[in-house]
Amino acid sequence: MSDLPNRLVGAIDSDRHWGQLMRMGAIGSVEQTGVDRPCLSPGDREARRLLIGWAEAAGATVSVDGAGNLWLRHEGTQPDAAAVLTGSHMDTQPRGGRFDGIWGVMAGLEVLSALHASNLRTARPIEVVAWTNEEGARFTPGCMGSMAWSGDTPLDRFASVRDEAGISFGDALAEQLALESDLPRRALGGRPHCYVEAHIEQGPLLEAAGQQIGVVTAIQGSRWFTVTLDGASAHAGTAPVSMRRDAVQDAVRAITALNHLTHDPDDILRFTVGRIVVSPNSSNSVAGRVTFTIDLRHPDAATLTARGDAIADTVRAAVTSTAATVTEVFHAMPIDFDATVIDAVEQAAVADGASYRRMPSGAFHDAQFVAGICPSGMLFVPCRDGISHNVAEYASPEHLATGTRVLARTLLALANG
Amino acid sequence: MSDLPNRLVGAIDSDRHWGQLMRMGAIGSVEQTGVDRPCLSPGDREARRLLIGWAEAAGATVSVDGAGNLWLRHEGTQPDAAAVLTGSHMDTQPRGGRFDGIWGVMAGLEVLSALHASNLRTARPIEVVAWTNEEGARFTPGCMGSMAWSGDTPLDRFASVRDEAGISFGDALAEQLALESDLPRRALGGRPHCYVEAHIEQGPLLEAAGQQIGVVTAIQGSRWFTVTLDGASAHAGTAPVSMRRDAVQDAVRAITALNHLTHDPDDILRFTVGRIVVSPNSSNSVAGRVTFTIDLRHPDAATLTARGDAIADTVRAAVTSTAATVTEVFHAMPIDFDATVIDAVEQAAVADGASYRRMPSGAFHDAQFVAGICPSGMLFVPCRDGISHNVAEYASPEHLATGTRVLARTLLALANG
Repeated sequence: MSDLPNRLVGAIDSDRHWGQLMRMGAIGSVEQTGVDRPCLSPGDREARRLLIGWAEAAGATVSVDGAGNLWLRHEGTQPDAAAVLTGSHMDTQPRGGRFDGIWGVMAGLEVLSALHASNLRTARPIEVVAWTNEEGARFTPGCMGSMAWSGDTPLDRFASVRDEAGISFGDALAEQLALESDLPRRALGGRPHCYVEAHIEQGPLLEAAGQQIGVVTAIQGSRWFTVTLDGASAHAGTAPVSMRRDAVQDAVRAITALNHLTHDPDDILRFTVGRIVVSPNSSNSVAGRVTFTIDLRHPDAATLTARGDAIADTVRAAVTSTAATVTEVFHAMPIDFDATVIDAVEQAAVADGASYRRMPSGAFHDAQFVAGICPSGMLFVPCRDGISHNVAEYASPEHLATGTRVLARTLLALANG
Repeated sequence: MSDLPNRLVGAIDSDRHWGQLMRMGAIGSVEQTGVDRPCLSPGDREARRLLIGWAEAAGATVSVDGAGNLWLRHEGTQPDAAAVLTGSHMDTQPRGGRFDGIWGVMAGLEVLSALHASNLRTARPIEVVAWTNEEGARFTPGCMGSMAWSGDTPLDRFASVRDEAGISFGDALAEQLALESDLPRRALGGRPHCYVEAHIEQGPLLEAAGQQIGVVTAIQGSRWFTVTLDGASAHAGTAPVSMRRDAVQDAVRAITALNHLTHDPDDILRFTVGRIVVSPNSSNSVAGRVTFTIDLRHPDAATLTARGDAIADTVRAAVTSTAATVTEVFHAMPIDFDATVIDAVEQAAVADGASYRRMPSGAFHDAQFVAGICPSGMLFVPCRDGISHNVAEYASPEHLATGTRVLARTLLALANG
């Protein structure tokens, strides 16, 4: 039995893995090194079809569930045993990179390919899942696929969410499922044995420490809000400043007040206004309406709850002439990963001779929702300068190969243990 | 001779005038009472074609110049004499109204129709012009047509300006001119005898005073700037706030500093940030770039120059982590209108029995550029609550009819005087 892990990692082909990852990165390519591949877009469809072909070539059985999550299954010698699950997502930020999300899916695929090439069967099935809409860039919020699958939020709650072009998530999903009607349909939900998600760190710590693997112990909590300020559009030349109901000026007041609310001398709390939409957005018209987003994160649930709950009142106290509407659109409390999975990742790193550290995740991931269903964990690989959600995002072939080997060892141990 | 003005205003058909104006307002209609008819858009083309038909029915000769300005000419008994010119523009703000600009064109058309119906010839020709792209909403800056015609700015300087879809003004104009190749082409430039532009006030003064006509004596100056802040996009969950180069946060700092720079206890200076574009504009990405506009206006040239010249340094001093680029994209110094034209408008109001006041204009208009070529002036009519650049913009049929009669008397006096 003890040579199995080495047989498996010996079958991992890091050139094939890098080559397939780069082919994926060419779908929706922007600015040479970036990717713009929104969820359920034509590019997403092309990427999914490519993945399906590769998975079938690796002997996997492919199915899709009602939320559009794509499942690639390597059958176990005990087909009725709960599967060991790995995966991540395939959608990107509007000017995102070639690694965020997609690498976790492709690392899972490479493990399936290595299992197939080495003719190796595990006791438990191993499944790779590509979750729908993790980024939330086209349809807000993110993690819709894993939230719907895990029962955190009913799928139909997302149906009416619209993208900027006015297309609803429900319609885009129905179109996608129709295009993949050749695949067996799988029910939402399930009870995997455990879940391990591989991902780039999206932060600078591993690179700075010269370490190869992050053994992820927890994910900080996230709360997303949308703020809408309704004022009155007016002529920029005639409306006296004192008489205006200027939504841009109230947005500046609100963001300034929120900066004070979220100020953290320890620099652990993350407060971001990443999206602003102004109407009519004309240089010589006073803005009648502004909508902006708030992304608030902290590893401590009490802090996240207290600061997040104060947002609406802070905005309302700051604005002077507009009507403020504050809506929470996403909510993921901090979670601690399962000790069994954490230990399995750590032991795999040791067995592979990889340097590693235990660390929490600053970004949220689908694992945050899967963790409510089964023992879960993650492993990180370094990315250059900690940059992500950016066309400059980069992880080296060597780091990705190490990560894929450690993932393979982890999955094998969990599937045969 | 003295019954001519009464013959002319007797031929003005206020029902026809209102009906034609409402038909125009139906082209690009939004939210029942609003209009979204960008310059050189399909809607603009449809509106121009409708205007051409009405002008021809009124016996006018129609031509177009190289900037797309549309000219409707009522021949005089002295065809070689310099024409008396009136007009305004047909494009709107993205959620603008049915009166701003288009009323001045339609009031001119109604005068031509009345001249035709009453079989009345003036000594000088009377011309109605519809200037291209006054609003600057689709292609920045505004007043391109009158700036090019008056020689303020060469037409080719605007050719490469692009709209949000990436279409250049040059290409849109060439397409428009090709579609109107049935019209005689007229050279840019000229020396009219004088220019009178009729417009809604776009402010609250006439309505508040219960007066029917504003005899416009001056236009305040305007300066438009574009500010671009280049930072770095990053992941909202992992990038520590202290390490970010967040363009939204620097925009908030810059606008706050500009509010201080432009603060005016007398509330005469107008400072507006009406347009903000964020990139990548995703809720969980730190903004890598923000572009915002500045619209600055003041009736005093020295004040406008001093405050405007301080904008770039104020922005650069305020930002903490981004590279700021400040570009002036439009510049119109305050102007005083010509006494002869002002007096003609005032005498027409008196002759018509209309209540009036002399007043400056807070908005800029094409008249600001025409004033550099020939004696110029304007007349205003009241609009409800002073609202403009807004779907709620409204002027009553009675006020518009009074304005059209006063315009007719003014043009007649200037053309025969």
